[in-house]
Amino acid sequence: MMMSSENLTVAVLGATGLVGSLIIKLLEERNFPVATLKPLASKRSAGGTILFRGQAVTVQEATPDAFEGVDMVLASAGGSVSAALAPEAVKRGAVVIDNTSHFRMHADVPLVVGGVNDDDVLKHHGIIANPNCSTAQLMPVLKTLRDLAGLERVVISTYQSCSGGGTEALSELLNEATHNLQHDRLEHRTDAFSPTSTFKRNKFARPIAFNLIPQIDVFSTEGDEAGYTKEELKLIHETKKILHLPNLAITATAVRVPVLVGHSESVTVGLQRPASLNEIHTALAHTPDVLVATTAEDFHTPRETAGTDPVYVSRLRKDTSNLEKGINFWCVSDNLRIGAALNAVRIAEAVVRLNALKL
Amino acid sequence: MMMSSENLTVAVLGATGLVGSLIIKLLEERNFPVATLKPLASKRSAGGTILFRGQAVTVQEATPDAFEGVDMVLASAGGSVSAALAPEAVKRGAVVIDNTSHFRMHADVPLVVGGVNDDDVLKHHGIIANPNCSTAQLMPVLKTLRDLAGLERVVISTYQSCSGGGTEALSELLNEATHNLQHDRLEHRTDAFSPTSTFKRNKFARPIAFNLIPQIDVFSTEGDEAGYTKEELKLIHETKKILHLPNLAITATAVRVPVLVGHSESVTVGLQRPASLNEIHTALAHTPDVLVATTAEDFHTPRETAGTDPVYVSRLRKDTSNLEKGINFWCVSDNLRIGAALNAVRIAEAVVRLNALKL
Repeated sequence: MMMSSENLTVAVLGATGLVGSLIIKLLEERNFPVATLKPLASKRSAGGTILFRGQAVTVQEATPDAFEGVDMVLASAGGSVSAALAPEAVKRGAVVIDNTSHFRMHADVPLVVGGVNDDDVLKHHGIIANPNCSTAQLMPVLKTLRDLAGLERVVISTYQSCSGGGTEALSELLNEATHNLQHDRLEHRTDAFSPTSTFKRNKFARPIAFNLIPQIDVFSTEGDEAGYTKEELKLIHETKKILHLPNLAITATAVRVPVLVGHSESVTVGLQRPASLNEIHTALAHTPDVLVATTAEDFHTPRETAGTDPVYVSRLRKDTSNLEKGINFWCVSDNLRIGAALNAVRIAEAVVRLNALKL
Repeated sequence: MMMSSENLTVAVLGATGLVGSLIIKLLEERNFPVATLKPLASKRSAGGTILFRGQAVTVQEATPDAFEGVDMVLASAGGSVSAALAPEAVKRGAVVIDNTSHFRMHADVPLVVGGVNDDDVLKHHGIIANPNCSTAQLMPVLKTLRDLAGLERVVISTYQSCSGGGTEALSELLNEATHNLQHDRLEHRTDAFSPTSTFKRNKFARPIAFNLIPQIDVFSTEGDEAGYTKEELKLIHETKKILHLPNLAITATAVRVPVLVGHSESVTVGLQRPASLNEIHTALAHTPDVLVATTAEDFHTPRETAGTDPVYVSRLRKDTSNLEKGINFWCVSDNLRIGAALNAVRIAEAVVRLNALKL
C-alpha cells in the first residue's frame, strides 16, 4: 500500500470500548503512520493505560482541548459524544473519522467503505463517516454486482451478533446462557427454557440466550418507514449513499442472534441485466477483501470466521423467484472489523494515501 | 369442534421421539376419539412404556403386522421408516398421516395444513402428508394474503431452532454451549469462542452453540435449484402445493440457529393487488390460529412463545423496495406443534370431521 511518510498525531475517541480498543490494535498491526497516539475516553475511564507498540499510554479525558495538535481522530464513543466533540476536533484542524451514526446521512459528510468509494474522502469538510456494521460488509459485494450487471432490487435479512451492542451486550449473552444452563432446567424435552427465568437483564429487553430478538435500535413511526427499526433504516439509506444509488429499491429486516462476534446476512439481489452464476462468482473472486466459496458445502459461519478481515460470501445461487436476473447469497464478516474498526482504519489509510488530510 | 363419536384405534409411529411424544400428549389434551392407542417405535425402543390418560402403555415394535386393526397412523419416525411401513398400514385399512418428507410431493398424496386446505384430505388414497415445519407455520398467513390480494412473490429467510433436528440436535446445542462456557474461554473481548474447541460433535457438521449454520439437509445439484438445500426446496415446493399455486414465484434461505424450540421467518411478500396495512392486519387478526401483534414493540420471539399453539405475526410493515404492493413481516411458531405434532393431530381431526377415514 502507498502510504505517506508523514507521521501523525492520532486520537482514538472511545479508546477503552470494544471497537476503540480494536482500532488501536489495528493501527499498530497495519503500521499506520502514528507518531503520537492519544487514547481518549470518558472521565470515568481516563487515567488508565492501554498498550500501543509495547508502550503503556495513558488514557486522557475527552475534552475539546484534548484535540489541540491532533491530525486525525477515530471516534467510537457513541453518537452524542461525536455530536459534541467532532466539531471541536475539526475546529482545531483535525480530520474526524466517525464510527457513530450521527453524521452519516449529512449531505456534506462522505460515508465511506474502504475499497468501495475511497474517492469520496476527497469531499470531506472535516468529518468522514464510517457506516453501520451491517451496511459495511455488504458494500464490496453490492458494488461488484452493481458494476457487473446493475442493481434492480435488494432484500436483506440480518443475523447480527451481540458484539454489535458493545461489551455489555456480549456479557449479557454469556451470563444469561450460563444462568439458563445452570438454573433453568427444561421441564419437558419439548420446552424452551422457562420464560420466567430469574436472570436479571440490563441490556436486552428480551432474553437473548437461546433466543432471537427481531429489534435492533428503536422503531420509526414515520410514513412508509413506520415499523422499521433505525438499524434497518441505516442499512437501507447508507447503502444508497455509499453506492451512489439514491433510488435503489432496497429493504431490510435486522435481527439480533445469540452469537458473540460476526454478522451474517441472507441477501436476495435482483440485477438489471442477466449475469450467469459463473460471471458473478468470478467477479466476486476478484473483489478485494471478499472471499467467495467455491462449493455449496464450503459455506461460512460467524464463529468460524470471527477475528479475520474478509467479507465471506457463500451459498451463491439463482433466486428461484426471479430465475432470469436474481441471485441469493449468504454474507458473513467480523462486525468489529470490516463493520467498524477495520473500516475506520482503512478510511484513515485512504485519507493519507489520497492526501486528503488538509483539503 | 365437530367430531365424530366413533372411537378409533390410533397408532403413533415414532412414539418415543420428540414429535411422536408430543403427538400423544396432544391426542390426550385435544380429546381426540382414541379408543386404543398403539405406540410404535424401533426394536431398540420397544418394551418401554409411555403415559396416555394416566395409563402406562407399552411401546411395541413397528412391524407390518403391528398395523392390523389400526384405523389411523400418525407417523414421525423418519422418511425411510414411512417409506417401508406406510404402505403396509394402508394395505391393512389404515389412513396414514405422515410427518416425513417421503410422500409429500407425490401427486396422489394430499399435503395438508389444518385450517388452510382441510378439504384436500378428501382426495387421499390412504396417505396424507404433513408438511415441513418451516412450511406449515407460514401457510395460514400466506393463505390469508392470497385470498385478500393475491400472491405475486415470496422471499423467505428462516431462523430454525435445533429441535427441528430432533433430540440429538437439542442435546448437542446444550452440551456444546455448556462446554464452551466452562472450557473455551475468550482470549480477547473481541473474540468468538475458539474454533478449535475440544467439544466433540455428533449431529452438526459445524459448531451450533453461539453460531449459525446456513445449511439444513443436503444440497441439491440440479439445474436452477443447484446450491439450494433440500430444506429450502421443501419450503418452496410444499408452499406451491398447499396453496394450489404451482407457478408461485418463491425463494428461501434456511438457517439453523442456536435456539431450542421455535422457528422464526423473515418474510417479504409481493401482492398482486394493493392492500393497506390496516386491511392486512384485520385479515390476519381474523385468521384462525394466527396471532398478529398490534404494535411494533409487541414483536414475538421463539423462546417466549415456545410451547404454545398460535402462529405469531409481528413486525408487519410496508416493503421499502416495493411500496405499492409489498410487505415485510416476522413469523414465529413452535415448530414441534404447528410445524409437526399439532398439525398432524389437526389433520387427524379433519379426517374424522369430514368422514374421510374410508373414502
